Formats: sequence, C-alpha cells, structure tokens
Amino acid sequence: MAAIGILIFEGVEELDFVGPWEVFTAAAHLARDGSDSVRLIAATDGPVRCAKGMRVLPDCGLAESEFDVLVVPGGIGTRSAANNQALLAWLAATAAKCQWVSSVCTGALLLHACGVARGRRVTTHHSFVETLRARGEVTVLEGVRFVRDGNVVTAAGVSAGIDMALWIVGQLRDPAFAREVQRYIEYHPAPPYSAEL
Amino acid sequence: MAAIGILIFEGVEELDFVGPWEVFTAAAHLARDGSDSVRLIAATDGPVRCAKGMRVLPDCGLAESEFDVLVVPGGIGTRSAANNQALLAWLAATAAKCQWVSSVCTGALLLHACGVARGRRVTTHHSFVETLRARGEVTVLEGVRFVRDGNVVTAAGVSAGIDMALWIVGQLRDPAFAREVQRYIEYHPAPPYSAEL
Repeated sequence: MAAIGILIFEGVEELDFVGPWEVFTAAAHLARDGSDSVRLIAATDGPVRCAKGMRVLPDCGLAESEFDVLVVPGGIGTRSAANNQALLAWLAATAAKCQWVSSVCTGALLLHACGVARGRRVTTHHSFVETLRARGEVTVLEGVRFVRDGNVVTAAGVSAGIDMALWIVGQLRDPAFAREVQRYIEYHPAPPYSAEL
Repeated sequence: MAAIGILIFEGVEELDFVGPWEVFTAAAHLARDGSDSVRLIAATDGPVRCAKGMRVLPDCGLAESEFDVLVVPGGIGTRSAANNQALLAWLAATAAKCQWVSSVCTGALLLHACGVARGRRVTTHHSFVETLRARGEVTVLEGVRFVRDGNVVTAAGVSAGIDMALWIVGQLRDPAFAREVQRYIEYHPAPPYSAEL
C-alpha cells in the first residue's frame, strides 16, 4: 500500500497520532503483503514526552524523508514546533514528495507554518479556528470532520484523525478495504452521553 | 476525580489503551484541580513494544496497586499475559480495591483469567467472543459497545474503549463534564465509508 510517516514532537497530543497510527497499522496487518510501513518520526533522539505525559520512542529521525503519506498531529507542542525552522524545512521538503499530506487538530498550524497549507481550504481543532485564520492565506472551515484540498487533508481535533485516516486508507486501496479496517478496530462509535456540539 | 491506572504489556494494542488514556488525561486537564492522576503500569522496566510496534514507557510498576479505576487493554499480548501468574495475582488484588475495573477488547480475557470477570456479563472484541465463552463461567454479550456488571465494565474492540472511558468519566463526575471531555477531543465521530457491521 504505502509508506506512512507520522511526525511526533514534545507536546504532541496522544490520540492525534495514535488514532491514525492504529488505522494505518491495522491496514498493514490486514493487507498481509508486507507492502506497508508505518513509522513515528521525531527530530530528536530518545523518548518524546507527549502533551498529556505519555512517553513514546520514535522509529526514525528527519534523515528519513521518503513517505507516501505524511501525518502531522497537533497538540500544545505545535507552538514551539512552529518555530523550529529545521523541522519546517523538513516538513516542506518531505510533503512535496508525498502522495497525501495530512494533519490532525492543530497540526494544521504546522502545515501552515511550513507553507503546505497556504492558499488551501483546511480545518483544525474547533478552539483554534480563529488562531489559524489570523495567520492569513488560508480558508478555515468549521463544523467539518476533515477537509481535502488537492492532496492536503486536514482533520478537526484529536479523534477526527481516525475518520481521516480511514478515508485515506480507502483512497490508497478502496473503500471496501477501509471498511475491513473499521471492523477490525470496531470503529462503530457510540458516545455514551448525547452531547450538544 | 480519581487515580486511573492503565496496564500495558508486550503486545498491547495501541488504541486499546491510548483511547482511554486520552479521555482520562483530557478529563484531568479540564478538571484543573490536580485531583486526578493517570498512569501507565507495566510489569517490566523499559519500553513496552505494543502489538503494532509502537514503543511506550510505563510510568510505574506492579509495586503500585492503589487505583480508583483500573483499565486492562487487549491485544495479541494477552495470550502470554494470561499465563503470567504474578501479573494475574496483581490484577486480582488491585481490582479488589478499585471503584471501577474495566477492560477493552481482549483485555476481558485477562479479567477472566484473574477471576474478576467470572460469573459476570461482559463483552470483548467481536473475533474473540467464542474464545472467551469457551473459558466458561462468563456470559459474553455481542453487538454492544460496552457492558457494565456491578463495578466491572468491559468494552468491545479497540476503539470502544473511548466510549467506555467517557462513560466512566460521567460516572466519576457527571455526564455534563463527560460531554466537555467529548468536545475537547472532538469525539463526534463520522466514519467516512458507511460500513455494514
């Protein structure tokens, strides 16, 4: 299917990246043909401390830049990541070679900072819609689960990355296969307390 | 609110534990009163390699046994974990002191192996319903998102732990607060390809 690269960094929100990780690794597992790889990428060696304190080891560093799909998650750490010029340069160069470039939550701020989201229709976490709009040169949609503009796919907050990753799996292969992945992870959600949005 | 302990082990399925982790840590974040702790527990030191290859560091070992809520995730690693007598003894002793004891996916096999699920109505991943039934002394429900029997709450596969954790947050505090957590993680799911179950 594809080589999937998922960026992680200090302060990355846990479910932002583990949601897509689970979807893409489940797809690789179900494909059973060894044609997929899913890796966590970090600019630093050693454990990455996530936004809520989980510590995760990356699989590779920025020396790797050949991916078919790039996933840029969000989290409180995007504030400093958006000022890391080496990381932004890597993002721009790596994204330019990808079939699909995606973000989850405030990862859209990083896609904007590196230039990839400029001039695009995108979405982000509902609390950061105005922040992203204020950056300019971008159309931020609200109340949508994810937005595709060309080969750039941006998801709303945190859990929305699961829906987006399933959609990308359906594009890489086909919707029937994406439904198999959905069944494997039993993604037939039923939030327990009916919530007003 | 509560001290939450989430067990991890070699071969634990990633989203099984990160789904509840995100829900409980988001709840702790939103509560802003420092009354919550959420920790990953492992029987071993050093990084835990998960079912799909992610490497995570635990926050504490089996010396810790005082939790209000225990979460036991599943994954391929439950096969060997179910034969780890020290782990099962810890599970039984720790669960006995908890307000809520929960499992996700095939974590129900561990709750059964340690005795906690015996005589209970439970659920598990749809592919392991017959496996769990064959263990005896348990009533396994199908086609449900999660099951509560007394203070034991068991969820269906992988992503169902998100729904279950939100439900537990609503029980620990109240449903309105659980809805705040749901909004924070934007859990208004919309699977992209309509799937037959």
